[in-house]
Formats: sequence, structure tokens, C-alpha cells
Amino acid sequence: MMLTAAAIPRTLDSSRRWQLRTLDQTLLPFQRRELALDGAAACAEAIRTMQVRGAPLIGAVAAFGLAFALRERGGADAALERGEAALLATRPTAVNLRWAVQRVAAAVAGLPAAARADAAWDEAQRIADEDVAINAAIGEHGARLLRDKAAGKPLQLLTHCNAGRLATVAHGTALAPVYALHRSGVAVHVWVDETRPRNQGAALTAWELAQAGVPCTVIADNAGGLLMRERRVDAVIVGCDRVARNGDVANKIGTYLKALAAADNAVPFYVAMPSPTFDASLPSGDAIPIERRDARELTHARGRDDAGRCIEVQLTPDAIDADNPAFDVTPARLVTALITEHGVLDAGDDALRRLPARAGAEQ
Amino acid sequence: MMLTAAAIPRTLDSSRRWQLRTLDQTLLPFQRRELALDGAAACAEAIRTMQVRGAPLIGAVAAFGLAFALRERGGADAALERGEAALLATRPTAVNLRWAVQRVAAAVAGLPAAARADAAWDEAQRIADEDVAINAAIGEHGARLLRDKAAGKPLQLLTHCNAGRLATVAHGTALAPVYALHRSGVAVHVWVDETRPRNQGAALTAWELAQAGVPCTVIADNAGGLLMRERRVDAVIVGCDRVARNGDVANKIGTYLKALAAADNAVPFYVAMPSPTFDASLPSGDAIPIERRDARELTHARGRDDAGRCIEVQLTPDAIDADNPAFDVTPARLVTALITEHGVLDAGDDALRRLPARAGAEQ
Repeated sequence: MMLTAAAIPRTLDSSRRWQLRTLDQTLLPFQRRELALDGAAACAEAIRTMQVRGAPLIGAVAAFGLAFALRERGGADAALERGEAALLATRPTAVNLRWAVQRVAAAVAGLPAAARADAAWDEAQRIADEDVAINAAIGEHGARLLRDKAAGKPLQLLTHCNAGRLATVAHGTALAPVYALHRSGVAVHVWVDETRPRNQGAALTAWELAQAGVPCTVIADNAGGLLMRERRVDAVIVGCDRVARNGDVANKIGTYLKALAAADNAVPFYVAMPSPTFDASLPSGDAIPIERRDARELTHARGRDDAGRCIEVQLTPDAIDADNPAFDVTPARLVTALITEHGVLDAGDDALRRLPARAGAEQ
Repeated sequence: MMLTAAAIPRTLDSSRRWQLRTLDQTLLPFQRRELALDGAAACAEAIRTMQVRGAPLIGAVAAFGLAFALRERGGADAALERGEAALLATRPTAVNLRWAVQRVAAAVAGLPAAARADAAWDEAQRIADEDVAINAAIGEHGARLLRDKAAGKPLQLLTHCNAGRLATVAHGTALAPVYALHRSGVAVHVWVDETRPRNQGAALTAWELAQAGVPCTVIADNAGGLLMRERRVDAVIVGCDRVARNGDVANKIGTYLKALAAADNAVPFYVAMPSPTFDASLPSGDAIPIERRDARELTHARGRDDAGRCIEVQLTPDAIDADNPAFDVTPARLVTALITEHGVLDAGDDALRRLPARAGAEQ
């Protein structure tokens, strides 16, 4: 079920060649500023600073970034290698970035240097279009899975971080089923984890759900366990940044704690996984590199002051140490199922091995 | 082992009759402003607004608050009842508050009205002094328990919220063993959960540990699970606001998630429990009332701006819903042991029943 580009708003607008347009996500929810990405360095910087974030979206932006690099540097092998390296260095955990960059590189490797930039742009465009289709399919599969859990009352879902349309080219991954349910008239309410330290839940998920008219309530990252004990959560649904061959899931820091609470309360825990997020090269989650980000993300919080300015305030005493791991790994045993574009799979070796061969980042 | 008041700094200074002095904890870590509490209304307001917080400290302040009420209103039964009701209404979850207020009321009930205020002050003073002695004993028992877990390297502890000296009249509960170890020369490092939404970890625990020279690192509430999976936590130690007869523990929201992660990684999970926090009247944690606080605590964060002012910034989109439960319940099965002033107990019915009879809030 391929949706046309016109039918849904895209987070990443690549409709004009050599010009990417997207929202600067570091300014949301208070400022809606369009970001124009016009070169390889701009793409890498936007990924590094999280102006664009979310595994599928950074994959797509990195793919276009490599096309820019080839255009800027003439398309020779050295330009290709330097462009790849610069993009791969921006963020280590999400595998989509590597997958997308390597796919573009492979697509142009056999071409003459002069033809590579245009061919790379075309391949990046295919990656972006496929992301839209993948997420639409995840939305349909997830909606079918979740529809039955409502039991006459509004379906109560809990999500962590932002795996919504802002994390993808369109639709979202974890939120794709939410939007699909909402469009089809099923009452759904989302508990939105704040997601410290960068508050992607409080700032981005809450914003995009509100924009779409989906009822939602922001909660502290600490609150989900209590809500599950109170039987106020029908299912947890999150995205992922990398899934290992055994089904272990790397996702935003704190995901593992919600998976533990879900298991302890017999609440289903679903991971929306587009196949490019599957990394068949890793036997387990132990091998997934965990990005540690600037402590300032934790010692400070960004928000809007009384005068309407977006500023940072310091939360901790001066000169205090802070550790800021950005991801954790949820073992497959805590994952009820993976929702992929190919259908709903158990998070075990066997089911994942049945993913179509093009999935994953084998090399 | 009773320590003298002179030997340790007290969070609550009641050395001058009819004048309480403490720090305004809503201004820490950026402003160290002394708060003078000079009447029953001031005590109730300080508890309600969390200028003073922590189960043992609010118990002590409430005890003095009832003395103030009797002094202000003449000591008759009606004054006693109104004073009790006003103080009990400030915060519902911590049982120390009820225990302390009822203990003072019982101590003065048989006295003539004119004698009640002074007798109430004396009883409140005994409660405060006992808190100091209880916490010192918890420190010794806890230090003995934890000392062996270091195994030659600095002992790595993780704590949630603030159960330090700022939460008590002196010493702290969960941090009392940390201070005892540090004083005795055992190398100890504390992972400090930020503790959204009010950031008692980032603001208070980090501040008091740094003041005492104890190495510590602030982490997001989301990070503890990853750290435990990485084997970087030797034990978790937290305080509590109310413990039911079966050993279920109500404590700051998010505690349950850390207990789940500790169990999943075979990391010991300890709860420092002064006996006034034990509520023998409740069969299980399901009966503990969970305070829900103002959503603004979650939609906004308080911190210091570039100009050095303490301000609030808004984190969420305008007009978004937020739910702000302040506590959760950790089932006894996840608690390795309770560290009490009487020693280290299993969190099961049998051990708790052996607590000396004066413990708890039976009525």
C-alpha cells in the first residue's frame, strides 16, 4: 500500500533537486523554523546537532548528504570515501545512517565520476520514498495489532522519545499505527514520556500528536511504571535505532526501563522496526555502540522563558560531573513483537531470519 | 549510638524555642537562603510547597507545626484538631507526617490546654533528635552492609531523588551509609538520578554530596538501567516515604523502575527505612495514596539562566496535558533489604513484624 507523496506531509522535502527542506527540531515546539540543507557539511552538521534526528530521518538525510559530497568534490573515489566517513562519524548508534550511506555508495560505485552525484541523489530519493512506504505499512500492521486491545475504551498507549513523523521522512514508525488508528476513527490516547535529557517526547511527540489532533498526556520518564501498575496502559510502542540479529533493541535511553515495567505488568511491549534498522551483522545488542553525548544536555534544559525566548537554564550545581548515554539496549526477551513493514514478528532469531534478504545492513 | 547535635550539621535548627531555621530547598543549588518558620501556617506552607521535603524532615517540621498551632490558638481540643487537620492535608503520601503529628497530639492530649504548646514543642524536639539518632544508626548498619561490595575498587552506588541530609533533620537515610563510608575512608562514588520532575537528585543530592566531598555523577532518570547492564552499579540505595506491612515501598516516582532494573541485573536494591516510615496499618502498597502534583512541575523546569537568575522555562507545547504522580510503589519482592535503625531486615512480613513495637503508625 504505497501512499503518494501528496497525501501526507513529509518531514523531509526533497522535491527540488539539490535542495533539502525540513524543520529545525532543536527549536520545536516553540519555533517552527525551516531548515535548508544545501551541502554535505550542512547535512552532517544537522545530524550531529540533532536539528534532524530519528534513525530513519538521519538515514535519509545522510543519503542525500553523500550525493551533495559527490557533487561538491567531483565524484572521484576519494570524494566518495571522504563523504562517507564524514557522515558516518556524526552519530554512532543508529544503523540506518550507515545503511543509507553504504547503499548510496554501492549504487554509484560502478559509474563514472561525473555521473555519480546525480545517481546518488536519485538513490537517496528512493531511500526517502521507501521510508514513506515502509512506515505506512508499519502503520497498517500496527493498527491491526493494536485495534483489538482497546476493549471499548480509548486505547491507552505509552511511547518513549519521538518515533513519530518528525523521526522519519513521513508517518513515523511507532506513531504510524497511532495515526492510522486515529484516521480510521479508533479512539486512542498516548502517554508521552518526556524523554530526558533532550525532551524529544515533551517537545516533539507532544507537538506532533497535538498537531494531528491525537489526545496525549506528557509524563515524566519516571511515571510509566506507576501507570502500568495502575492498569492505565494497554500497550507500549517505541521506535528503535538498531536491532541486532537476536532481536535486542537499541533505542533512546530509558526504553529498557519501560520494557521491564511492561514485562512486570504483562503489558505488551512493541517495537516498530523498519527493516533498514535491522543490523544482521551484530549477533546481539551487546555489540551495539552506545553514543555518549555532551553532559550539557543533562546539566541544562532548553525551554521558553516568560519573555517568549528559547533559552537554556542550568539545573545542576556548578562543576558537577554528568554522564549522558543516549541509548540503551532492551533484550529481545522483553520485546513482545517487532512491527515491521513485512508484518508483525517475534523478536527472536528465527523470525528475524525470515526478513526478506534486502533488509538489514549485511556486509 | 547517639551523636550530639554539635557533631553534625542539622538541616533543621530548632535550638531556639519557637523559631525553626532551615534552608529553602526550592532555591538550591543556586541560592542558599535560610528559611525562618515562625508559625503553624508557615510550617504547613513550607511542606506544601516543598521548601522542606523528605519524609523524615516533613515529619519533624509538622511536629513543630502542631506545637505552633497550639501556641497560636490556645491549646484547646478544637485548636489541636484544626492544627492536625491542616498539617495532614499538606502532603498525603509520606506517613512520617501523620505519625509525627499524631505522636505530638497524643503526647499533649492529657494535659491542660495551657500546658500543651510547650509540651508539644518538647515532643517535636524529641522527634527531631530521634531522627538524628535513627539516621546515624542507619548509616552504621548500611555502611557495614555495603563495605564488602566494593571489592577493591570505589564502591559504585546509585540513588534516586534525595534521601540525604536535606531530607532529614541530619545525616540522611539512603545517604547516611554513604557519608559513614566516606568518613571512614572507603572510596565511594554515587550515580545521582536527576529525578524529574522536581530534580531533587540533580539539584539537592548532587549539591549535598559535592558539599561533603563525595564523588558523584548526575545521570538522567533514564540512564540507570543501562549503567546496571554495563556492571557499573554495585548497589542501589534509596529512601522511602511509606512502607506497608508487607514490605511494599512507596518512594519518589521512578523508584520502581530502578528496582526492576536492579532485579534484572542482580544488583542489590536497598531501601533505607527509619521506623517512623513503616506503616503497619496498611496490608500492602496498593493502599498507599499516591500524591498527584501540579502539572506545571512537569511542563516547566526551574534553573539558572545566563544572567544568574533562577527562573522557570516551559518545556512542552502550549496547552498540553500532563500527569504528575509524585510517588510509585515498589513491590517487596524487588527489595533486597530494608536498612533500619534496628539493623538490616528482609522486606517481608516476618522480618517487619519483628520491628520493635514503637515503630510504625499503628492505631
